[in-house]
Amino acid sequence: MNHVPFKGIIAYPITPFDSLGQVDIPLFQRLVERLVANGSHAIAPLGSTGVLPYLQDEEKEAVTTAAIQQVGGRVPTLVGVSCLTTERTIYHARYAEKAGATAVMIIPMSYWKLTDDEIFRHYEAVASRISIPIMAYNNPATGGVDMSPALLKRLLQIPNVTMIKESTGDVQRMQYLRRELGEEVAFYNGSNPLALAAFAAGASGWCTAAPNLIPQLNLALYKAIERNDLQAANTLFYDQVDLLKFIVATGLPRAIKAGLEILGEEGGQLRNPLQPLSSTETATLRQILQHMN
Amino acid sequence: MNHVPFKGIIAYPITPFDSLGQVDIPLFQRLVERLVANGSHAIAPLGSTGVLPYLQDEEKEAVTTAAIQQVGGRVPTLVGVSCLTTERTIYHARYAEKAGATAVMIIPMSYWKLTDDEIFRHYEAVASRISIPIMAYNNPATGGVDMSPALLKRLLQIPNVTMIKESTGDVQRMQYLRRELGEEVAFYNGSNPLALAAFAAGASGWCTAAPNLIPQLNLALYKAIERNDLQAANTLFYDQVDLLKFIVATGLPRAIKAGLEILGEEGGQLRNPLQPLSSTETATLRQILQHMN
Amino acid sequence: MNHVPFKGIIAYPITPFDSLGQVDIPLFQRLVERLVANGSHAIAPLGSTGVLPYLQDEEKEAVTTAAIQQVGGRVPTLVGVSCLTTERTIYHARYAEKAGATAVMIIPMSYWKLTDDEIFRHYEAVASRISIPIMAYNNPATGGVDMSPALLKRLLQIPNVTMIKESTGDVQRMQYLRRELGEEVAFYNGSNPLALAAFAAGASGWCTAAPNLIPQLNLALYKAIERNDLQAANTLFYDQVDLLKFIVATGLPRAIKAGLEILGEEGGQLRNPLQPLSSTETATLRQILQHMN
Amino acid sequence: MNHVPFKGIIAYPITPFDSLGQVDIPLFQRLVERLVANGSHAIAPLGSTGVLPYLQDEEKEAVTTAAIQQVGGRVPTLVGVSCLTTERTIYHARYAEKAGATAVMIIPMSYWKLTDDEIFRHYEAVASRISIPIMAYNNPATGGVDMSPALLKRLLQIPNVTMIKESTGDVQRMQYLRRELGEEVAFYNGSNPLALAAFAAGASGWCTAAPNLIPQLNLALYKAIERNDLQAANTLFYDQVDLLKFIVATGLPRAIKAGLEILGEEGGQLRNPLQPLSSTETATLRQILQHMN
Repeated sequence: MNHVPFKGIIAYPITPFDSLGQVDIPLFQRLVERLVANGSHAIAPLGSTGVLPYLQDEEKEAVTTAAIQQVGGRVPTLVGVSCLTTERTIYHARYAEKAGATAVMIIPMSYWKLTDDEIFRHYEAVASRISIPIMAYNNPATGGVDMSPALLKRLLQIPNVTMIKESTGDVQRMQYLRRELGEEVAFYNGSNPLALAAFAAGASGWCTAAPNLIPQLNLALYKAIERNDLQAANTLFYDQVDLLKFIVATGLPRAIKAGLEILGEEGGQLRNPLQPLSSTETATLRQILQHMN
Repeated sequence: MNHVPFKGIIAYPITPFDSLGQVDIPLFQRLVERLVANGSHAIAPLGSTGVLPYLQDEEKEAVTTAAIQQVGGRVPTLVGVSCLTTERTIYHARYAEKAGATAVMIIPMSYWKLTDDEIFRHYEAVASRISIPIMAYNNPATGGVDMSPALLKRLLQIPNVTMIKESTGDVQRMQYLRRELGEEVAFYNGSNPLALAAFAAGASGWCTAAPNLIPQLNLALYKAIERNDLQAANTLFYDQVDLLKFIVATGLPRAIKAGLEILGEEGGQLRNPLQPLSSTETATLRQILQHMN
Repeated sequence: MNHVPFKGIIAYPITPFDSLGQVDIPLFQRLVERLVANGSHAIAPLGSTGVLPYLQDEEKEAVTTAAIQQVGGRVPTLVGVSCLTTERTIYHARYAEKAGATAVMIIPMSYWKLTDDEIFRHYEAVASRISIPIMAYNNPATGGVDMSPALLKRLLQIPNVTMIKESTGDVQRMQYLRRELGEEVAFYNGSNPLALAAFAAGASGWCTAAPNLIPQLNLALYKAIERNDLQAANTLFYDQVDLLKFIVATGLPRAIKAGLEILGEEGGQLRNPLQPLSSTETATLRQILQHMN
Repeated sequence: MNHVPFKGIIAYPITPFDSLGQVDIPLFQRLVERLVANGSHAIAPLGSTGVLPYLQDEEKEAVTTAAIQQVGGRVPTLVGVSCLTTERTIYHARYAEKAGATAVMIIPMSYWKLTDDEIFRHYEAVASRISIPIMAYNNPATGGVDMSPALLKRLLQIPNVTMIKESTGDVQRMQYLRRELGEEVAFYNGSNPLALAAFAAGASGWCTAAPNLIPQLNLALYKAIERNDLQAANTLFYDQVDLLKFIVATGLPRAIKAGLEILGEEGGQLRNPLQPLSSTETATLRQILQHMN
């Protein structure tokens, strides 16, 4: 098992729906193909961008299988398997492993606020049933629970919890992780507007839906970091920050769908209650994209 | 249709599980029976206390049917039917109506933050498919979205959205609702530690899991309010506030299960990742209950 | 020494300035006289309403003397003496005692966040140098530090710290104080929109600038509480809540000055950087007052 | 007038007191001399570190004069002149200009929350009375008001408001300033734990008390940034981050005094209510410093 199979740009596809409200698998596979073809270093289906929690069990399975088949081993895959209950999380983690996922990503979804012990036991229970690595994902804005740096450190005691994705939008969290856990533990940035600050702080990769729209700018930023050129990275970051802020502010599934259509691609339908961007928002997005491409 | 079928103490049963992790319907029915027998003015299955989001579709249906059968029309029933997607919410709202529910309760569950328009359309879509009243439920701590007083006011334009349950824990929200909407709109308090303040502000009822443990104190507080005796209400409130704070602080499903067992009743199992109270917490709860019963 | 000399409506005068920017003592005394004449149970100069922190030392002394002389012992006086440094707080507390103040009010003003020990020593140092009672005042929105209920409880160990004024706007704080400290410790509500909830929770008094504008409604609310008539208190509260919210939202010194002028009274000038209400805000205030008087 | 006279490491001395509670001017001058001798690019007396709000008018004047005399033009000086009232702020800004300050720093201190218009008029009134540049300082944690990026942009319309110091601890604020205002507007980082992220985002300088304790590490970080060596900057940042976090967490005046004493320097006394670090905190600081020097 490669404990830390990801670095660079980890691209998140949306999950598109057809006019009847069903997942549009062929379109999904074309969107995955675009991300691979554009040079993404990994593909991560069923993230927040992929509206994981809005899907039924069988839909999650179909998306998992379709993504892994389409990628075909060209780059590693990171499959979201988070559920409110431990039992369902185990089910989907095992499904992903069997389907050939490189690793799974798990956010401790919360309705009732979970204690640290409950979160630890949840990860431990899932981890004991699979043998691929787990990326622990902290995103209080969507998941409703904020894992402290101390808890994240504790989760890393579980053998196959080997990676952390931080999406609080607070760069000091990442600094703490690096300082406490040392350079050997990989942390990933899940907050688009922190892309530059996170790489400066030592992030191994950037988990982002932006490559659906501006893959060249995303990759160029990473390459500037790789060659230790901060000035170029700074310029490249400010070249793309307006889009990064926009897609976060309006919600990734809505914004990526709209952006794809502006670029002449199909974006499919959203699932209710999520609605398309307003015409004003779409016009703003069009302007932002025109300045970039 | 009675637009506002509830007042007084609206009691929330837990959903107990058996040792195999399945919903324990016979025990659930005994717990519902206790609540009715103890004088609760209404029964509300599948609330946060009833761990609605942790259940599979067929489990929700079984609980709905079991609750309504057990209550047998002695008091009105309020069934929780909230789901992340509009389609699933409609499905369960229709199921509840057919099963004989007096009304349904809907919280706009959020993974992606919903816009006000998305929330309005969600309620509108559900409301158009059923003919029983809807209680709109605001609880950012569990649902992840905070509906503004202005949005709640807007929701009341939908004909069968006739009641509001406020659980932010901010009594000023309730004051705003009363002031803006007038005395004819019923609002309900869902924050246990605000029981006295909410009744003083004019709440029509108190949505609470506390009657599982201290029904007499809950009912006595309401009766003091009904007979305009603030001093008695104040005394009765401080007699029960420690329990009200405890069950909120430790999480209603965990605390009610533990409290039932302290009282010599069966509480069943919790569903993972939720874990029982620690022994220290259980000891604290025992002390609190001993001072009350 | 009367340890708890206040109950009911504790009225806060503004500190008016003349066209040269100096404190207008004659106008100040007329405003104090109105408050006494209208039936306020106590007068509290140099509160937040009285812009204490914006005054120079000699101005604070002049206002203290003028207030106590004008009241002339008809009702008790509560003089604000808070300063950033302990030495200046002691100085003004001693000045107030010599001038005849019934008690002093102290908020732990904070630029650097103070530790609990620093706050305790601050109160202890002041308390040891005067022999009149101290009201400890918690208002994070203006003072910048939020004293926990546990710290407030600790402060009450100091012999002449005998009263607590709570202005966080969270009625649960007051409930905690009542529950932890017992009925013998007096707590006062400093959050206008919580007037009803605080009295329901057992507050001894209401610290408020509202009697500058609507003294009869303020007093009537208190009297309804005194005669245990919750329904009347509820009605009276909703009759005045719009004004209570308005004066808090726009800032008490600005709002009271504007309100006085709407009522045909002089309100004096504000001290820069504070500016008068906008014309829109003033029009709103006029409407609110017209519905009340 | 040089509109933007600062870059690099802007060092903040503490204001030490003697055993009688008076400002110790000779010690203050020795501490300023250390900062200049150690290579700081500018000296900033009477910042938050210099406990400006805890000083009387004449003390502020003495510190201003002493700092400027000691620096003797070797590096530029930035003098804090913030007061609650506009009149006192003008007074001290004019004093600083006459005494030879290169620029003044102004934070809109707030007891009553100021409106954007009030803040703008405050800066405008001060700016019109002096001819040296003003650095607008945003630090809600100490000043109590949070100036939005839009307000900061508006302040830059005032001719001699030419610099912004951002201390919210949110790197996205700095990114916004850079993006909205362009590269020609200088912004400075006032949040120590963001030193690396802020430089990566394009900050012109770092306003910090850390050079009192670890000047070589602070300067080395800046030099790595200057020569576009992100990897070295990253390493140097993690070498000093523990100290940066510690001095912020425990309060700069307390921590710098303790650190000076650990290094064998005099740190003077604090002014009440500020108290020295506890012995545990001091031991932690000793450990941190031992790993660095």
